[in-house]
Amino acid sequence: MNEDALVVFTPSGKRGRFALGTPILTAARKLGVDLDSVCGGRGICSKCQISPGVGSFPKHGVTVSAEALSPWNQVEERYKNIRGLLDGRRLGCQAKVMGDVVVDVPPESQVHKQVIRKSATLRDMNMDPATKLFYVEVEEPDMHEPSGDFERLALAIEKQWNIQGLKADLAIMRRLQPVLRKGDWKVTVAVYQSHDGAAPRILDLWPGFYEGSIYGLAIDLGSTTIAAHLCDLRDGSILASSGLMNPQIRFGEDLMSRVSYAMMNPGGDVEMTKAVRNALNYLADVIATEGGIDASSIYEMVFVCNPVMHHLLLGIDPVELGQAPFALATSGAVHITARDLEVTSVNVAAQVYILPCIAGHVGADCAAVALAEEPNKSKDLVLIVDVGTNAEILLGNESRVLACSSPTGPAFEGAQISSGQRAAPGAIERVEIDPITKEPRFRVIGRDAWSDDPNFAELIKDTGVTGICGSGIIEAVAELRMSGLLDAGGLMGSAEQTGTNRMIPQGRTHSYMLYDGTTQGGPLIMVTQGDIRAIQLAKSALYAGARLLMDEMGVDHVDRVVLAGAFGAHISPKHAMVLGMIPDAPLDKVFSAGNAAGTGARIALCSKSARAEIEATVGLIHKVETAIEPRFQEHFVNANAIPHFTDPFLLLRAIAPLPNVSFNTQSGGGEGGRRRKR
Amino acid sequence: MNEDALVVFTPSGKRGRFALGTPILTAARKLGVDLDSVCGGRGICSKCQISPGVGSFPKHGVTVSAEALSPWNQVEERYKNIRGLLDGRRLGCQAKVMGDVVVDVPPESQVHKQVIRKSATLRDMNMDPATKLFYVEVEEPDMHEPSGDFERLALAIEKQWNIQGLKADLAIMRRLQPVLRKGDWKVTVAVYQSHDGAAPRILDLWPGFYEGSIYGLAIDLGSTTIAAHLCDLRDGSILASSGLMNPQIRFGEDLMSRVSYAMMNPGGDVEMTKAVRNALNYLADVIATEGGIDASSIYEMVFVCNPVMHHLLLGIDPVELGQAPFALATSGAVHITARDLEVTSVNVAAQVYILPCIAGHVGADCAAVALAEEPNKSKDLVLIVDVGTNAEILLGNESRVLACSSPTGPAFEGAQISSGQRAAPGAIERVEIDPITKEPRFRVIGRDAWSDDPNFAELIKDTGVTGICGSGIIEAVAELRMSGLLDAGGLMGSAEQTGTNRMIPQGRTHSYMLYDGTTQGGPLIMVTQGDIRAIQLAKSALYAGARLLMDEMGVDHVDRVVLAGAFGAHISPKHAMVLGMIPDAPLDKVFSAGNAAGTGARIALCSKSARAEIEATVGLIHKVETAIEPRFQEHFVNANAIPHFTDPFLLLRAIAPLPNVSFNTQSGGGEGGRRRKR
Repeated sequence: MNEDALVVFTPSGKRGRFALGTPILTAARKLGVDLDSVCGGRGICSKCQISPGVGSFPKHGVTVSAEALSPWNQVEERYKNIRGLLDGRRLGCQAKVMGDVVVDVPPESQVHKQVIRKSATLRDMNMDPATKLFYVEVEEPDMHEPSGDFERLALAIEKQWNIQGLKADLAIMRRLQPVLRKGDWKVTVAVYQSHDGAAPRILDLWPGFYEGSIYGLAIDLGSTTIAAHLCDLRDGSILASSGLMNPQIRFGEDLMSRVSYAMMNPGGDVEMTKAVRNALNYLADVIATEGGIDASSIYEMVFVCNPVMHHLLLGIDPVELGQAPFALATSGAVHITARDLEVTSVNVAAQVYILPCIAGHVGADCAAVALAEEPNKSKDLVLIVDVGTNAEILLGNESRVLACSSPTGPAFEGAQISSGQRAAPGAIERVEIDPITKEPRFRVIGRDAWSDDPNFAELIKDTGVTGICGSGIIEAVAELRMSGLLDAGGLMGSAEQTGTNRMIPQGRTHSYMLYDGTTQGGPLIMVTQGDIRAIQLAKSALYAGARLLMDEMGVDHVDRVVLAGAFGAHISPKHAMVLGMIPDAPLDKVFSAGNAAGTGARIALCSKSARAEIEATVGLIHKVETAIEPRFQEHFVNANAIPHFTDPFLLLRAIAPLPNVSFNTQSGGGEGGRRRKR
Repeated sequence: MNEDALVVFTPSGKRGRFALGTPILTAARKLGVDLDSVCGGRGICSKCQISPGVGSFPKHGVTVSAEALSPWNQVEERYKNIRGLLDGRRLGCQAKVMGDVVVDVPPESQVHKQVIRKSATLRDMNMDPATKLFYVEVEEPDMHEPSGDFERLALAIEKQWNIQGLKADLAIMRRLQPVLRKGDWKVTVAVYQSHDGAAPRILDLWPGFYEGSIYGLAIDLGSTTIAAHLCDLRDGSILASSGLMNPQIRFGEDLMSRVSYAMMNPGGDVEMTKAVRNALNYLADVIATEGGIDASSIYEMVFVCNPVMHHLLLGIDPVELGQAPFALATSGAVHITARDLEVTSVNVAAQVYILPCIAGHVGADCAAVALAEEPNKSKDLVLIVDVGTNAEILLGNESRVLACSSPTGPAFEGAQISSGQRAAPGAIERVEIDPITKEPRFRVIGRDAWSDDPNFAELIKDTGVTGICGSGIIEAVAELRMSGLLDAGGLMGSAEQTGTNRMIPQGRTHSYMLYDGTTQGGPLIMVTQGDIRAIQLAKSALYAGARLLMDEMGVDHVDRVVLAGAFGAHISPKHAMVLGMIPDAPLDKVFSAGNAAGTGARIALCSKSARAEIEATVGLIHKVETAIEPRFQEHFVNANAIPHFTDPFLLLRAIAPLPNVSFNTQSGGGEGGRRRKR
């Protein structure tokens, strides 16, 4: 009889021979099989459940006898009685190898591999959070071998979990002795292990085996909105997603006006820092409530943000970011605590990680997009545009990645638009204009029905129609152009010129009446000539930034376009193309990545190897500075027309020919887009 | 002609050959010659001054020409004009090797080797502080190679000072950009480099070359008094020494009464923590004022203290220290910040280091004594007794070191004594009693004159005579014994029995009137039978602890006795022997080490290698627990007599035969000391 036996794990197919008597959990660990355990094999946590097979497994070349595993034992019986265990399941820490065996690891026993959608492909995210729970059994104190309770805990963690050089703050030291005694020298600890070489640190501890979980916040701190995901640090699942307006808006709508505010008002940076930190405290409370947890069980926060937000969050005056050479105070990843940021609503020991910045104008948000979309691993040349108040633009492939930021202003987020508002229930997000009747129909956020639905008024009675958000105004402008109400130069025609009395004169220009709710006490929502100009400026800046990177790369076409950003998900590629927001690309190669920066933040929250990865990647991204580049201005001017494509065939494949209208009596502005030199 | 030349440094005698053109500072560094520099060889700091020789140096086998060094240069000329330079001096960073040369390093250019007196020997202390100043020149930002100002500073420090992985708190990040620009990209930084593997950290920074210094506090946090040295971290010099009463005294005079207070009063530990932290804030302010510096230039604090003080300082409930197995919350060295301790009067970034504890009853103060007195490096068997409210006792040599603590109570510090007071001006510290007339004379702290000086009243009119301190009461008791007023059992005789009317009846016992200041409105200072009993208990505990260690070591004699502790310096060895405080030892082998714990704190403040050393040493010290050891009780009872020596010959060599008196009519208690079994 052999003294060892073959163990085959499914679905991984990993296999190896082990001495008889080896627990399945031990075998799994030695083979690197993805089998969870929190209690370290003591039959407490039940995370290591397995389904052993019996019979013939020709695929694996094994026949498994009924005695291949040690008999069902008391620990398993007790566990099953108390908490239940599916028939056929065993605990991997209890079942021992007694003969050749095939063991299936059910999905819930795997340390989850979270799959995050990367536009056009999938992106693996391994759960590898910096903060994890560990159950440990600590030696009792011995008068004759004196050592501190903490030192014995550290030794136990080293022996039982191979974590060396543990540290703890005074707040933990203060609680340690009663907790150890209450748990009869058994304790669960939350340990933060940074990838930057700092000593592992206890963030919290509970007597005995702790049944609860621990949570983290992935925060995309934008100029206009602060968006957060509340994630379970055990499996990466999202409990709640929430957002609120960045209260710094009252100091200036875009980044440069906030920098100006700091420069012109002594202490202005401190005011803005205080405002954003207050908002974070509130946000953490709100999202914890939404997620049904206590905010004090939030142990980590990961931030992505542009450089100005980054400095204002950290309490650093952003004045240097407002003038060449746009020097960041610090560009590397930042490891601090929530206490450092005066965020007190989360756990007192909560740790903060901020992704690295790429340059003075290209921030941690852009790094997060790179982490989520991985242009540096792309075979084809991909252009990634993160649309926000500032657009972050990445262009590259596995050989080279370029980045820049472009000052689009907040128009794409509904600001600086006459009836603009942020994306919230009641905001118009989709618009269609009938090319014949010139009549609009639209949809508001939170409802599937279009406005020409007979029950529309009833369906939206909770929210009403309150304004128009970023994606709504983009569609409206594109639809105005497609329906012949707007010429290529961006001028709207009069009622006479267009044959619709939806065109209303306002001063020397004309506005399009999208919705008149005044009879029901609602708003009058117009698209004004000023709105068109704001969108033209924004899209020209966006296009010019992308074009500048293409120049630097020496290309005229890109293989793939990814639209990211908090509302990137909602921009219709067709309308983006009509508007000329993005360079020429086949419409089927334009993808939407949703909030890629937020996704990057979430990846970094759930994986410290991802943190190390993006820190390395950022060093390889070459940054192009738009602010001092004369060609940026040139591209900007040339991109003013709607649309301004160089390749009409690409456009034709995407959409019907555009009406050849012109409402400008002074010049042939309608051809502006095609005047650009090749 | 050779391309290199011989360079000989005096006084070290280190020598080596260097390429012509090598700066003397570079040669010194390569040879490990002790030549200071703060600015890194830029001719700014002048710390590297040298005296080159000219002529024949037969001892070194060198003849030095006048052209052996490069000519006096502009940098040196400018320096001499602005700040002066002694004739014959050169700057080591400017003078370059041009031929064989002998270079003397004057004492002020050496990184000081501080010699601290260790009783009976000398102890070297190398200046190796954790916090040092570094002058660096930082690359200016470049828009095309974007990196943060901090990252460029870190790179400069790595290149110029070989310090890797620099970190900084947000408060430093906030100040970084304006400081770098004000100093035109030259900056002096204070960097804390811990020996525990934590990343080096910027504590402060100044534009350009910073002329000032940085300071640290070495604090001996005793149960009764808090004593501190303010040291210059550049050279280890003491600017001021100060002390104040531990305000926790109002919660209990000795350690166990404070532990009881914490146990009996919810929140009692928090009250005591707050009290000691407030005192530390006050002490830092006072000592900075005394030293003529701003408290905000204190960047480090090192603490030594017993375990109860240790826990109360850290805000940890000391309840576990009051009951077996006397488990410490943490026994290892503690690295925290002054902010963690709520000590805000020092620099906001100030770092705190607390020496490791040896056991639940043997604290960081004992570790500090071991660091200062180095029993582990002693050839002969040394007994070190640190006398305080608790006595810390060490016994050992280079093979083995034992430690225990003994609950002497605060009698040795003047507490629990009828006219007792802490050591302060006006307190009686020396006492003599004439064996014939039985009349006393004494001296008070702060004055050299004895009380029989005709001008005594005039000399002490500032302070008066206010009470009796620890060393005074010890001398008084011993003198009472030697003058026949006290028998071996500790009973004082009546006026009739002793023939002096200084013996005053008080209840059923008699007191000795030491000083009657009542006619001048001063105190009546008596030594009461209660005082004798308090001292007997204290000295018995001390003796029993030492004896227990000798039992454990298997010895009956020690080679050397060191009396340490805040007032160890003031105990006369003769009186200590008469009292029977310490085991038998030749009087010329009893030394006083002053405040060895405070010295240990100062060594740790000035040297991070000393910190590493004591952390290693503590692990090797074997701790003996007095509280549960039956022999301790036995030794304690047997040590009650005055004296209780086993070897009368040793005593005879030291002092005259003691009067053979007995005032106890019930028993032959006077022989108690000799009843002890051998």
